[in-house]
Amino acid sequence: MHVPTRSDAEAADRADPLAAFRARFLEDHTAGVDHAIYLDGNSLGRLPVATVERLRHVVVEEWGDDLVGSWERWIDRPQQVGDAIGVDLLGAQPGEVLVCDSTTVNLYKLASAALSARPDRSVIVTADDNFPTDRYVLEGLAAQRDLDVRTLAVDPVEGLDPAELRAAVDRDVALVALSQVAYRSGAVLDATAINGIAHAAGALTLWDHSHAVGAVPLDLTADGTDLAVGCAYKYLHGGPGAPAWLYVRAEHQPRLRQPIWGWFGQADQFAMGDRHDPVAGIGRFATGTPPILALAVVEEGARLVAEAGIDRIRSKAMVLTALAVDLIDAWLTPLDVTLASPRDPAQRGAHVSITHPHAHRVGRALAAEQVVVDVRPPDRLRLGMAPLTTSAVDVWDALDRLRRILQARSYERFSSTPGRIT
Amino acid sequence: MHVPTRSDAEAADRADPLAAFRARFLEDHTAGVDHAIYLDGNSLGRLPVATVERLRHVVVEEWGDDLVGSWERWIDRPQQVGDAIGVDLLGAQPGEVLVCDSTTVNLYKLASAALSARPDRSVIVTADDNFPTDRYVLEGLAAQRDLDVRTLAVDPVEGLDPAELRAAVDRDVALVALSQVAYRSGAVLDATAINGIAHAAGALTLWDHSHAVGAVPLDLTADGTDLAVGCAYKYLHGGPGAPAWLYVRAEHQPRLRQPIWGWFGQADQFAMGDRHDPVAGIGRFATGTPPILALAVVEEGARLVAEAGIDRIRSKAMVLTALAVDLIDAWLTPLDVTLASPRDPAQRGAHVSITHPHAHRVGRALAAEQVVVDVRPPDRLRLGMAPLTTSAVDVWDALDRLRRILQARSYERFSSTPGRIT
Repeated sequence: MHVPTRSDAEAADRADPLAAFRARFLEDHTAGVDHAIYLDGNSLGRLPVATVERLRHVVVEEWGDDLVGSWERWIDRPQQVGDAIGVDLLGAQPGEVLVCDSTTVNLYKLASAALSARPDRSVIVTADDNFPTDRYVLEGLAAQRDLDVRTLAVDPVEGLDPAELRAAVDRDVALVALSQVAYRSGAVLDATAINGIAHAAGALTLWDHSHAVGAVPLDLTADGTDLAVGCAYKYLHGGPGAPAWLYVRAEHQPRLRQPIWGWFGQADQFAMGDRHDPVAGIGRFATGTPPILALAVVEEGARLVAEAGIDRIRSKAMVLTALAVDLIDAWLTPLDVTLASPRDPAQRGAHVSITHPHAHRVGRALAAEQVVVDVRPPDRLRLGMAPLTTSAVDVWDALDRLRRILQARSYERFSSTPGRIT
Repeated sequence: MHVPTRSDAEAADRADPLAAFRARFLEDHTAGVDHAIYLDGNSLGRLPVATVERLRHVVVEEWGDDLVGSWERWIDRPQQVGDAIGVDLLGAQPGEVLVCDSTTVNLYKLASAALSARPDRSVIVTADDNFPTDRYVLEGLAAQRDLDVRTLAVDPVEGLDPAELRAAVDRDVALVALSQVAYRSGAVLDATAINGIAHAAGALTLWDHSHAVGAVPLDLTADGTDLAVGCAYKYLHGGPGAPAWLYVRAEHQPRLRQPIWGWFGQADQFAMGDRHDPVAGIGRFATGTPPILALAVVEEGARLVAEAGIDRIRSKAMVLTALAVDLIDAWLTPLDVTLASPRDPAQRGAHVSITHPHAHRVGRALAAEQVVVDVRPPDRLRLGMAPLTTSAVDVWDALDRLRRILQARSYERFSSTPGRIT
């Protein structure tokens, strides 16, 4: 096998149609160097340059100058930004996506609404590689409603086999809740197949697209998805703790009622009437006053992603993760590293996971060499390759530094105690 | 009665120990004039000057430069900002307040936790002048749990008489949920008395302090409050749709479990374990990833309020609302205006409501004269006098313009159709 050289990586970058997007983001200056290699855009996406001025405008001109008068333009922002994400990045129809609350709260609202729509069923199906907050939210709802959670033990590298799911989804199942791109392995599930299995049994589906949106093409209309949520602070570059989005297929909206009956989901809201009467449409899934400053930040990030085009983003992600896998195979496998992501580029998102027995120490040693990755216990390193802000040379250099760290065992100088954020 | 003159208002402003705070906020330039009279700080507080630079710092230096490395400093922000609000403005102990989610979502979480802690009781008590989102959230919880909501019809001006409450709170009552400062009338309730009534019957209390925090002194420790929530975008100057705060008395924290089991309420969060195990302390009331940018904005606003001092703020609010009531009595009562707030300054917050048969038209006529108030259907105008940003001359001039509008009936030129935001 030809091991990719740094010149190969440089050639890939020269051929990259998205190369110019890198300048649309702020370069960091961590630790005084011009540019650390940031392979953690799957955790927190970089700051778009345009966001700084946009946010200043919203703060100074809209809040500071126009004050409460700005609500005329603000009140529809959750749905406007939702449509921008939905139509451009999710394959949704206008009026099916809302930006509001956090991913966790949106999971709760939609899962609760789905369970209430299947009152005669007693089982939620999920997988053990679903993101923790998803599993906890489902566990909480099951405890409150005396339901069972059927958690499928899936291959930690390849993810769920739809055949395993088919065996688990019977007519007791109200809801199938999964992540399309697994947060650890990056494994991609076949949403069309899984929606079909769920629907054949009369269950609804709830997808968490936090690690998918902005990284892989999605077509929620075509794939038959009922409900979905996703985060905006990873590949959408919406900032730390950005509000999340939720999707409810239009045909389900009239029949679903979420549990948090807030004034922003109320018909004729400013009449402030006596009884809750949910608005028709996606707005009924809103709760409280929308986070206006943060919505502007999300919109700027999502706009950049849409401008770049999800197909070009997907192509680049496949180039970068394939480069990483080639270098892992050639350099790192002899050094106690195991690939923990699918080998087929079509079967993984925009990050690649590896394992090493001293993952925490290795993560710290990489940080000391200006390479930012994240570590997931007990032994996993995630290498995120956000396509708009990562080059092939970044990937090559990062893995070259990792190779040297492992060869020299220089990670032994670093603490093995997990940090709170790793 | 001596009718206050503009010279009296000017003298009051010269004697105002908080006068210098006005320069700490951005003056608006609505409609090209230097300074509209903004009597809507009870809806959306003004922008502190320091917030602009603080937010830029968080965005550019913390997010842009340090990226995911900033989580080491960010992760405790919800509790740190919560403590700043709690200790300085609520009379809470450290570790009893968290800034997270919206007021609506926090109401849902705490009301749900309280109801689960009283599983053998079937009634929620509230009042018909409680804020709409509060009433809707309680209505939703009651529908989901097959409980009754006992909504007390209270005096629309004076608010709830504790004697009426005493009659309503029997041993079927799980939760008493009220606003200490009513959003329409501004009437102040006696929290100590009401907490005592609830506790004597074995019920828990949940207060909405959205119209109280930053406007009136609160002492949740001394008054026996069990649970509380409040908004940060009014008198705390935290920006449109700012995250809200929640308070849970320390002694209740181990026994209460909120319904949204998210990863930010999880013990040993980054172990990403299989089962939800809520963290000890106030952190268990968190849900998803905290809104880092917005938390900085809230902190800046709350800091200004704490620096000014809530006792001085309260004194000034009483001066301003008393001035308003004197002018309403002298000028407006003959012009179809009725005072719709308590006449005793000690019994009202920092806003005064009036009614007029053509409230919407009058509100628009005031806006055309550079006076911003808000209108609540069917016939109410609210005049908010946020003490840090409102002068006695503002109040005098605004009511003088209102008098002229009513005398000339110039409001008849304006539409009576309610706006969505008024």
